[in-house]
Amino acid sequence: MTTARVPYYLDCDTGIDDALAVAYLLAAAADESNGIEIVGIGSVSGNVSASVGAHNTLDLIALSGRDDIPVAVGAHDPQVGSFRGGAPHVHGANGIGDVAIAKSVSSVVDGESAEQMLVRLAHEHEGELRVIAIGPLTNIAAALRLDPALPGLVKELTLMGGAANVPGNITPVAEANIANDADAAAEVFAADWFITMVPLDVTMPNVFLEHHREALIESGRPVAVALGHMLDYYFEFYVGVYGHRASALHDPLAVAVALGEVGLKTAPVVRVLVDHTDGPGRGQTICDLRGMYNGFPEQSGAHARVVLELDDDFAPTLLAKLLTA
Amino acid sequence: MTTARVPYYLDCDTGIDDALAVAYLLAAAADESNGIEIVGIGSVSGNVSASVGAHNTLDLIALSGRDDIPVAVGAHDPQVGSFRGGAPHVHGANGIGDVAIAKSVSSVVDGESAEQMLVRLAHEHEGELRVIAIGPLTNIAAALRLDPALPGLVKELTLMGGAANVPGNITPVAEANIANDADAAAEVFAADWFITMVPLDVTMPNVFLEHHREALIESGRPVAVALGHMLDYYFEFYVGVYGHRASALHDPLAVAVALGEVGLKTAPVVRVLVDHTDGPGRGQTICDLRGMYNGFPEQSGAHARVVLELDDDFAPTLLAKLLTA
Repeated sequence: MTTARVPYYLDCDTGIDDALAVAYLLAAAADESNGIEIVGIGSVSGNVSASVGAHNTLDLIALSGRDDIPVAVGAHDPQVGSFRGGAPHVHGANGIGDVAIAKSVSSVVDGESAEQMLVRLAHEHEGELRVIAIGPLTNIAAALRLDPALPGLVKELTLMGGAANVPGNITPVAEANIANDADAAAEVFAADWFITMVPLDVTMPNVFLEHHREALIESGRPVAVALGHMLDYYFEFYVGVYGHRASALHDPLAVAVALGEVGLKTAPVVRVLVDHTDGPGRGQTICDLRGMYNGFPEQSGAHARVVLELDDDFAPTLLAKLLTA
Repeated sequence: MTTARVPYYLDCDTGIDDALAVAYLLAAAADESNGIEIVGIGSVSGNVSASVGAHNTLDLIALSGRDDIPVAVGAHDPQVGSFRGGAPHVHGANGIGDVAIAKSVSSVVDGESAEQMLVRLAHEHEGELRVIAIGPLTNIAAALRLDPALPGLVKELTLMGGAANVPGNITPVAEANIANDADAAAEVFAADWFITMVPLDVTMPNVFLEHHREALIESGRPVAVALGHMLDYYFEFYVGVYGHRASALHDPLAVAVALGEVGLKTAPVVRVLVDHTDGPGRGQTICDLRGMYNGFPEQSGAHARVVLELDDDFAPTLLAKLLTA
């Protein structure tokens, strides 16, 4: 007897926190009781180029013994303009903190781009596919253009991105994933599907500290050790943000939210649009949170759940999961 | 022997919460130990038209026995477009909650507009004049155009307006005073003077409740009683915001901050600009609060103090003051 598993597609720009997210997702899938199947992974330019991101992802999943998962390369450039070279000051020249991990013997998917893969998977798993996007939304918007019926095929979309009641990280109001392709993000939020947005409001206050990093390294487990070393680079960048060594837990938190593995204390469903003008607000996720003083009354037409507050600190949950990776 | 008093110019769009602010300022000035002199008041269209606002202000100051203070009518229309009729659903048809108070026998200043008065006063009190703006910034921007030297003449500008880490009240990101003339606000924030911004972040959580209103009415003092009756109208509007009868304390809080009568727990000096595009962010005060995770490190070129948190609840301070009005 076979039990149908819940299919997930991950779109990423790997990236140190993407590496944590991939490891989290793989660890969750390795637990048979979760009934999770990762049916495909796509890469997009963001922290690194789409090509580098795909190869980092291949290497990471090989380290986890999962080089059977197909990885497709997605968009190199945002909808408007060109890829600007990523964030080596945050993620290192190779995107994973300049840590060397074994190269996978597998190759990226041949003849199918990330957005093509996403559309195909959405049809194959009609009404069931869960999409997790932890990079810029270029591929997701491209898939919407490829098949405008996509929102009706996908069960839900969870994304790491935006800032609601806190500052951005690229501009005073814009977060990097959204700002890196504001036009794509505007299309994704305007489409008629249910979105769960995991913004800086929750990813910034939930951090790994040195003792979490040490626990990863001390575990002696290959994936955990590699992640611990990558975080050394990430922690240095964040000294300028937090005033001490730490790392925000952006992407793994989005995966944990998508899997329902963290409790959401405040997460209203509200209208969200993305500023894709050329003004100073470009890249901002404009969330209509005016109902915050009155328990967020229902808004007609709202279809984005904005995670503003968790029940508990995410770091222990993440650490426990990564120690099984 | 005479002691030089500290000169204040108030720019307002009276308005119920403006009425509270005017009463607060007059009560503070009535206390000789404060050494405050209100050298002029200008009106601007916002909650009501500039003309109605001027007459409401005249009537209020007459009720306080201060019809000696000159009140000048300012801009009827914002820089771009036309005055849209104010907010009768918030402030009543007459702007003061449809409460009837005695008409002042005094008249508005003849032959001098609010911005002309502001420029003249800034020269007469060079380096000393404190400006408090609790309406749209049309007059302040007009004064800047009339005399570009104004920032060097004025000691400081305190304004009620904007939203930093909380939603707006007119759009998801824009507060009414700023949004009512975003172009003027952009000029005011770009000018080289020290601004203290009192945004919705602090004016929304600090509220009057029914017992405060009753205390005003029970005092039997003419000004306090009139304010208590006005608040009845304002409280009804805010049921839709807070879910119960209450009022935000926008304008009086700005006056109290300008007078140094409330403690500021968090009030970083940061770069602020106003979105005056035609995009969805129009009217937003974009405050660079990215340093919030690290104690707000100093920013070069920053000249706006953004009040994010007070030491104490403002309502008791306000009530005590108004009971002396």
